[in-house]
Amino acid sequence: MPPLPLYLQIADQYQRIIHAGGLKRGDRFPSIRHIMQTQQVSMSTAVQACHVLEDWGLLRAKPRAGYFVENTDAHQPVASGLRPAANDTTAKPQQDLSQRYDGLHQFISEWMAKAEQYPVSIDFMTAVAAPRSYPTAQLNRAAASVLRQHPDILTTFARRYGHPKLRTVLARRSAERGMTLQAGDLTITHGCIEALNLALRAVCSKGDVVAVESPTFYGVLQALEAQGLQPLEIPTSAEHGLSLDALEMALDSQQPPVRAVICMPTLHNPLGCSMSDANKEALVALCRRYQVPLIEDDIYAQTSAEHVHSKPAKAWDSDGSVIYCSSLNKILAPGLRLGWMAAGRWQARVEMLKYSQSRYLDELGQLTAATFMDSQAYDRYLARFQARLQQLRQRAVQAIAQHFGNQVQMLDPTGGMMLWLRLPDHVPALQLSQLALEQGVLTSPGPMFSSKPRMAHFLRMSFGAVSEEQIEQGIAILAECMARLAAAPTSH
Amino acid sequence: MPPLPLYLQIADQYQRIIHAGGLKRGDRFPSIRHIMQTQQVSMSTAVQACHVLEDWGLLRAKPRAGYFVENTDAHQPVASGLRPAANDTTAKPQQDLSQRYDGLHQFISEWMAKAEQYPVSIDFMTAVAAPRSYPTAQLNRAAASVLRQHPDILTTFARRYGHPKLRTVLARRSAERGMTLQAGDLTITHGCIEALNLALRAVCSKGDVVAVESPTFYGVLQALEAQGLQPLEIPTSAEHGLSLDALEMALDSQQPPVRAVICMPTLHNPLGCSMSDANKEALVALCRRYQVPLIEDDIYAQTSAEHVHSKPAKAWDSDGSVIYCSSLNKILAPGLRLGWMAAGRWQARVEMLKYSQSRYLDELGQLTAATFMDSQAYDRYLARFQARLQQLRQRAVQAIAQHFGNQVQMLDPTGGMMLWLRLPDHVPALQLSQLALEQGVLTSPGPMFSSKPRMAHFLRMSFGAVSEEQIEQGIAILAECMARLAAAPTSH
Repeated sequence: MPPLPLYLQIADQYQRIIHAGGLKRGDRFPSIRHIMQTQQVSMSTAVQACHVLEDWGLLRAKPRAGYFVENTDAHQPVASGLRPAANDTTAKPQQDLSQRYDGLHQFISEWMAKAEQYPVSIDFMTAVAAPRSYPTAQLNRAAASVLRQHPDILTTFARRYGHPKLRTVLARRSAERGMTLQAGDLTITHGCIEALNLALRAVCSKGDVVAVESPTFYGVLQALEAQGLQPLEIPTSAEHGLSLDALEMALDSQQPPVRAVICMPTLHNPLGCSMSDANKEALVALCRRYQVPLIEDDIYAQTSAEHVHSKPAKAWDSDGSVIYCSSLNKILAPGLRLGWMAAGRWQARVEMLKYSQSRYLDELGQLTAATFMDSQAYDRYLARFQARLQQLRQRAVQAIAQHFGNQVQMLDPTGGMMLWLRLPDHVPALQLSQLALEQGVLTSPGPMFSSKPRMAHFLRMSFGAVSEEQIEQGIAILAECMARLAAAPTSH
Repeated sequence: MPPLPLYLQIADQYQRIIHAGGLKRGDRFPSIRHIMQTQQVSMSTAVQACHVLEDWGLLRAKPRAGYFVENTDAHQPVASGLRPAANDTTAKPQQDLSQRYDGLHQFISEWMAKAEQYPVSIDFMTAVAAPRSYPTAQLNRAAASVLRQHPDILTTFARRYGHPKLRTVLARRSAERGMTLQAGDLTITHGCIEALNLALRAVCSKGDVVAVESPTFYGVLQALEAQGLQPLEIPTSAEHGLSLDALEMALDSQQPPVRAVICMPTLHNPLGCSMSDANKEALVALCRRYQVPLIEDDIYAQTSAEHVHSKPAKAWDSDGSVIYCSSLNKILAPGLRLGWMAAGRWQARVEMLKYSQSRYLDELGQLTAATFMDSQAYDRYLARFQARLQQLRQRAVQAIAQHFGNQVQMLDPTGGMMLWLRLPDHVPALQLSQLALEQGVLTSPGPMFSSKPRMAHFLRMSFGAVSEEQIEQGIAILAECMARLAAAPTSH
């Protein structure tokens, strides 16, 4: 057996101490600083060791107070590894929170599990806007009206492929962005994430390679891993988006070959950038030339007045080779969970997979959205919504400049609800996020957005769900945490 | 290349005639009887040939009038096979309806595509009750009240794992049936079908063998096929349900080994039978002994007063090895699309797969259901609902006895909303269903419920969604069709 990594050796030492009675339930556990000094290790190693002890149920983190010894009965020998295999039917029932995320992109999973364990007062992670930014009262009136006009809607079997009225409205509004879609070309899904999953199931088989942007939305990496697909990360710049040169090289020579490309050409998550029209057109042509389906995720475009009429890549799709995926979660109503897709030549297969996987959506939500989106009130709302996000974005950009000065680099995005920060080289995003989380400030550390260890010094901040005051306060706390980290020793 | 099957040879002959101008757009196509006589083939072969020509876009069926030549531009060479491979990226965009079901359990798919092409006046296929049997007005009031009390519900990000109130009510009510579940043990899903899919994804990998009842719910066969899993059909009797002897033999000796068992122990679909308590307990013990997860589908139990307090197999699950799946679609509100599951030791993995696949459900529907189910009005409603279904069931049983006499065999089920009929040996269910569909009566032919050619002379009839008058009228039409079939020649 190879030697254990350093952090596991340290975790193992401490579990022996705890089991030998050297530390009792309720005792304060040595601080990270103390572990670094006594063990002569880096902060990263000390933090990892504590995470492992937490995973084993031996420690519990208390916000702003540090770690405490939790349960001295818990015990898991180091040699068995950290996590039981997902299919191991002889494993004990899985109880602890961290195992909720078992087997899927370990870093993302660990961070999400951790985020659930702390009381969060300022949420810079959830990428939606606050209810007051959405047309809450208007949607409620629409819902009540749908219930009056369709009294059997809750007790009637939902119709196939989605409600015709919603499909019609979405098709009509997609024309405003240069797409020529009919209602019959659309499938309504449970959010954009189901659309992306269905697109992958339709065009890929287990083991296939899928080209993704680097960085990319972590949900894409999770979906790939859950379906047994391999991400191939294509360099993506914060100015121009996906590198077409790099993609072409991959399409040309990658073995095993690339079976699909997933891309967010407009208001990319997490970068916030958009590809030019010329590059979108070239992307579609490139994928067509190599006969590889392009899966387009377009959920953020309409969060910005500047992009509300921008064309998605799908607008250049002449032969059905682009699978367009979008949703109303960001721009209209996160609580309705409505996504949609236009799967082109794979529509038949997508519809059958959708039927087989989850049947059709309830119609109350679909008709509520369709009723509102069919009116001019929707356009007026959208303009207000975009202005509100712009306001919050400007406030966040200002606060970052004020608190961080030139220590962080950031592209001032033209829309969306997130910022992508490059931290100084001596500040690892994970430690910064961890420290901030202990202060109740939740962010998304860069490593969530890549399957490679490339984004260690980046941080995504969403500002849609918070107030101006929270932006000020949260960014001040982040700056404080960064100063503390910068003062700490970093080598061992 | 092997010789083409007879029906394809005949289809090919006719497409040549059509393309040569021998039959023009709008012309009436020769009748099934004519094809049988001139080509000296069975009705089955003639019908299949017409289906193929329909798939190619050359024929269109008109209810009660036969086939007409549709589009003489449509053409697909026989040698290329009927269906483009699902992953064939060079295939033309898929337009025609039958291809919606491409690649998933061909027989089921073809029948569902066909059912969409005819105007149906009496629906014996959809297995839900009519809106008037459900508590429509009470649910609407509950929904309106939820909207008033939670004005931000449509514009707030849904919380994880399902709404706590619904999980609590479901856990509490599951205690009435002998299950000891906490709210935290439950995951809310998009109908039972998503629960079954998640269960399979959690415990199986592509290529694995899954034991299923024979016959079984066609949605199970579709889910298996869509996930690349292999069904192993275990003999299942209309009196006692799944054969435990046969299952034990399969668990003992099947290679590759059985990785999961899917079972409907109470009010089986389509058989309508229930296993005894002793057999349910033995089933759980058997699966535990072989360390194979048991996936239980329990959606029909509460459709019957006789079974409302019956225990599911999960009640005997002491170590989390039963994945319990259920839904409110049958017993409360088909339009809410609410399912739920208690995945035992696989809960962590199921929750992550659910997150990765479709995130969480909208909360308006969840709170609406929870509000109503939390009241005693729910119990009173359920008793009325069960009585109504019993009324319809009795009417259907009487009508069948009256119109078919002893020509069909049927188990008089103790609950549920379906009957499973055994037709005479000279009456193939598919032809009977096809003839009836042409008269506007939709049924589910037996072959949908098996991946083997075993159920050719069975028919499932659901009676929940129809009125007494429709039961009378529909069964009379079925009897008429059967008489016509019995008079037709059956060999070639």
